[in-house]
This record gives sequence, C-alpha cells and structure tokens, in this order.
Amino acid sequence: MSVLIVGSTALDSIKTPKFENPRLLGGSASHAAVAASFFCPVKLVGVVGDDFPSRYFQLYKRHRIDLEGLQKLPGKTFHWSGEYEANMNNRRTLLTELGVFETFSPTLPKGHQNTAFVLLANIAPSLQSHVLDQMVRPKFVAADTMDLWLNIALPDLIKLIKRLNLFVLNDSEAHQLTKEDNLFVALKKIHQLGPKYVIIKKGSHGSLLSGPDGLFICPAYPLHTLIDPTGAGDSFVGAIMGCLASSKASVDKNIRRAMIYGSVVASFCCEGFGLTRTTRITPQQIAKRVSELKKLTRF
Amino acid sequence: MSVLIVGSTALDSIKTPKFENPRLLGGSASHAAVAASFFCPVKLVGVVGDDFPSRYFQLYKRHRIDLEGLQKLPGKTFHWSGEYEANMNNRRTLLTELGVFETFSPTLPKGHQNTAFVLLANIAPSLQSHVLDQMVRPKFVAADTMDLWLNIALPDLIKLIKRLNLFVLNDSEAHQLTKEDNLFVALKKIHQLGPKYVIIKKGSHGSLLSGPDGLFICPAYPLHTLIDPTGAGDSFVGAIMGCLASSKASVDKNIRRAMIYGSVVASFCCEGFGLTRTTRITPQQIAKRVSELKKLTRF
Repeated sequence: MSVLIVGSTALDSIKTPKFENPRLLGGSASHAAVAASFFCPVKLVGVVGDDFPSRYFQLYKRHRIDLEGLQKLPGKTFHWSGEYEANMNNRRTLLTELGVFETFSPTLPKGHQNTAFVLLANIAPSLQSHVLDQMVRPKFVAADTMDLWLNIALPDLIKLIKRLNLFVLNDSEAHQLTKEDNLFVALKKIHQLGPKYVIIKKGSHGSLLSGPDGLFICPAYPLHTLIDPTGAGDSFVGAIMGCLASSKASVDKNIRRAMIYGSVVASFCCEGFGLTRTTRITPQQIAKRVSELKKLTRF
Repeated sequence: MSVLIVGSTALDSIKTPKFENPRLLGGSASHAAVAASFFCPVKLVGVVGDDFPSRYFQLYKRHRIDLEGLQKLPGKTFHWSGEYEANMNNRRTLLTELGVFETFSPTLPKGHQNTAFVLLANIAPSLQSHVLDQMVRPKFVAADTMDLWLNIALPDLIKLIKRLNLFVLNDSEAHQLTKEDNLFVALKKIHQLGPKYVIIKKGSHGSLLSGPDGLFICPAYPLHTLIDPTGAGDSFVGAIMGCLASSKASVDKNIRRAMIYGSVVASFCCEGFGLTRTTRITPQQIAKRVSELKKLTRF
C-alpha cells in the first residue's frame, strides 16, 4: 500500500560548527517522504514557491514520489535557517520565512483521498486536521509535532491527537504536554488523549513505543559521525510509516520492526547535510544496519 | 567465585522534593556489595566510625557479606548529605563529612588477597590503586569513578585505568575525560587508556558496553516511580560483578547478560531510599524484570 505524507516542503539553510549549507532541500514532508520511499509508494502533499529549484523536483521524482499533491504557487518557498551548537544537541532558529506556506491550505487530489496510510508530518495542527478531514476512512493515521505548536496551538493539537492511531513526539515535548517528568507516566497521559500508539523520540538515546502490547525500547543506531541532525525525526517517522504500509502483517505485529528501520534511516540522515546522505541510501545499507542493531541489543 | 568490593561505607542524608531521610546506610561499597550479594559471596573492604549503627552491621550480615575487611575506627563514619531537584535528574551535595575516611588506608586481610573478582567502587583512585596493589593476580578488575576524581585526582585515575579489565563511568564523565562529545569516539579514546571493557552509564537511558565483541546497547528498566536514585550506579556495577563472579561462563560470554542484571538491580535501588528497597529484592523479582527487559527490547 502507499502512504500519503503532508508537511512542510522547505529550503533549509543550516550552520554547524564546521560547515554552512544554504538552501538545501528540507522540511518535514521532504525528509519523511524520501525516508518512506525506500519502502512503499509515496504521495507528497505540500506547497512550494516559484523559486523552488527544479533539481529538487527531480530529486523527489528519482524517489518515485507522487507530486500531484505538491502545489506550486507564486511567491517564495518556505525558508528556514538554523544553527547548531558545538555539541550538536542544541540548535537555534536564525530565520523563518513562511513564504507561500503562510496561506497554504491543502486540497487533496481525488486519487489521494483513499490512501490507507497517512502521515501528518510536522506542520500546524490545523493544517494536519484539514488534510485528515479530506481522507476517506484511512487505515492508519500518524502525526508528528514540535514544541512551537504546543506553545501557540495547543487546543488544535489536542483535537488532532484524538483522531490519531499513532502520535509521535520527543521527550521534552512529552514533558511539556503532560507536565510529567516521568516518561512512562507521561505516556499513559498521552494515551488518554486518544492514540492507540505513542512513540517518544529521545535522539541519540533511541525511542520508546507504548501500545497495546506494552512498551518497546527502540535503540538508536550508534553514530560515530554526526554531520547534521536536521530532519532525523521526520526521517524516523517517514520510514516507520513506509515500513508499515509496505507490509502485509498487521500494524500490531510490525510496528517494532518498523521503528528499527526508522532508527536506521534516521541514522543515515544525520550523516549528511539535509537530504544529501539519505538520498544515497541503498537497500543493502539499510539491511546491514538493521542486522547490526540486532547484534547490538542481543543478550 | 567471590567478589572483593572496596569503596565508601557511609551514612547518607538524602532530601528529595517529597521526603527527607537522615543517616541511611549508603556509600558506593555498601550499594555495590548488597547488589552483588544476590549473585555470589562478597568481601567488603571499607571503614566505619564508632558511631556506625549496629543495625547496619546486621544488614550486611543478612546479605552474608564478609566483614573481615571492614575496619571500625574511633571517630565518625563518613557522612554525605545531598538534595535532589524536582525532576530527580540533578542533585547537589549539601554536606560532606569525611570522618574516619580522611585517613583510611585499607590493608587487606590475607584471605582476601586471592579473590578472583575485584570491584574498586567509587573512592579516591589512589585508594583504589592501593587495594589493587595488595591483590595477587586477580582474574578480573573493575572500577567505577565520579567527576570529583576527574577534577582533583586525574593523574591517579589515569594510572589506575591502565590496570583495569573494566572501567565504568557515566556519559558526562566520559565527555570530561576525553573532551569528546560523541560517546562512541569517547569510548575508543578510553580503550586507549587501557581497559578491555568500558561501560558508560546513561541513567534512565540505559548503558553502553564497548569490548572485543563491539558495542552492546543495554536498556534501563522502565521505572514509573523514582524515589531515590542514590546508589543506582553502584548497584548496577555491583550486580554486574556479582553476576560475572557467579558464572562458569567466560566474562566475554557473560558480560551482556550481567549488565541486564545490573540494570534490573539498579531499578529496584531507585524505588526506595538508600538501600531500603534493594535489601528486600527477591530472586524471583530479579528474574521477572530480566524477562520483562527481554520482551521490552525484542523485535
């Protein structure tokens, strides 16, 4: 089956202590879509301006990503600029130019409305809901978010969470949402908001799944070189959804394995700026790291 | 086989946001010895003052801990007082009274010098070395440390590390020792200092082993209630050494499993003040959590 992915499609200017890269292809939907494309057909929903470089359209196409839902509007593409600190753990936003994203209201092509798997990658929760409103009985709906929406659009986010099968957030967002220091107590509170599955991302410490079969402690792939973590969380959830959509097994049976694939794809994402490393992943490289993660956690 | 454990034997006064408990039995050697006692015979080496409560001698004895190497000297027992912040992640020391520890220089009883497994739990590295000097060809030597010794006794610590089979430290200490932000690069640098095995403790994020068979990502047991994390790291390494000493399998074959047992015993430690929960652990409870950890990480 295929996965529909809505989110931001952006140009990212990223500074790290060692490098500076202007106007790379970025955005939550770009990272998630490329990550999912290793596993199943992907339909991308988003918006770009008329400055969007044609080489980035080509990049999507090389990954066989369906662009019928990608609007091209007069104006500038969403541009984000950020800088990482020396330890690469903290980043600060230098600039956010919304451009065509400011008035974006996605209308799904007819053929998209019956897609079984839906990933509402990180954008405003009202837009995520707006896309979901147009879907016809999706089989499995996941959403990611960020601290910004917890700060400025919490009621919208709470409304959205009720409608999800899977909600993905990071550990500090889980604390912020629930006012709970203990992650496992926070997980229980998030389930009470609606979703059957909750995944908490902990960066280099891996991630936690909570669902009907209890908890799963998912390791991060050990990275000796971290070039740019931008988009790692989007890649993680994109690969998870691609994996789930590609499998004949039920989500219940497949979700742990999907998270391992998510960890692996996210690890590649961190090894290059923007999507430069992710786009060069081979199926053999994914399989190798999955089997390494098995060995790294076996006891 | 048995394990010889040297370290601090102390009275701990611990404040958390909800509770305050004065003069509980504590110290690195106390926590490590009780943890190891669930797996093998333990010989404790340390010092207490004449104020040391007889109920704490009884506690050691109930765990069949050999106290021949525990000196009782005129003066006060080492007393530490600390306070945890609301999130229980940060603690600050309120008071340190060295007492009889100030002039402590352990002399091992003859019968202790041939012990196969030696755990140099957290004390000054010069004392750790002094104990090691008295051992006759130990089979496996491990040491734990703390940031204080990195700050004030680094040359002593470096000398000690060369002589270890296993060095245990936490992630921030690994950064401090190697000036490396990346833990996996830090691990390589620590191996260059001598030890075949290095374990990095990451608190609720679990731990990492690096050794001849590569890395092992060891999960922490998910705790819904954290009462007092004091001594969790000591319990972790104590249980590891107890497990290794109790097994007929080689350390190479057994160390991953030993870490899982370490995680489990440390999780119980956090569920009560001082040693109050640890001392009540049953073998059935340990086995249950070990099997839960298996399920929590299976994919």
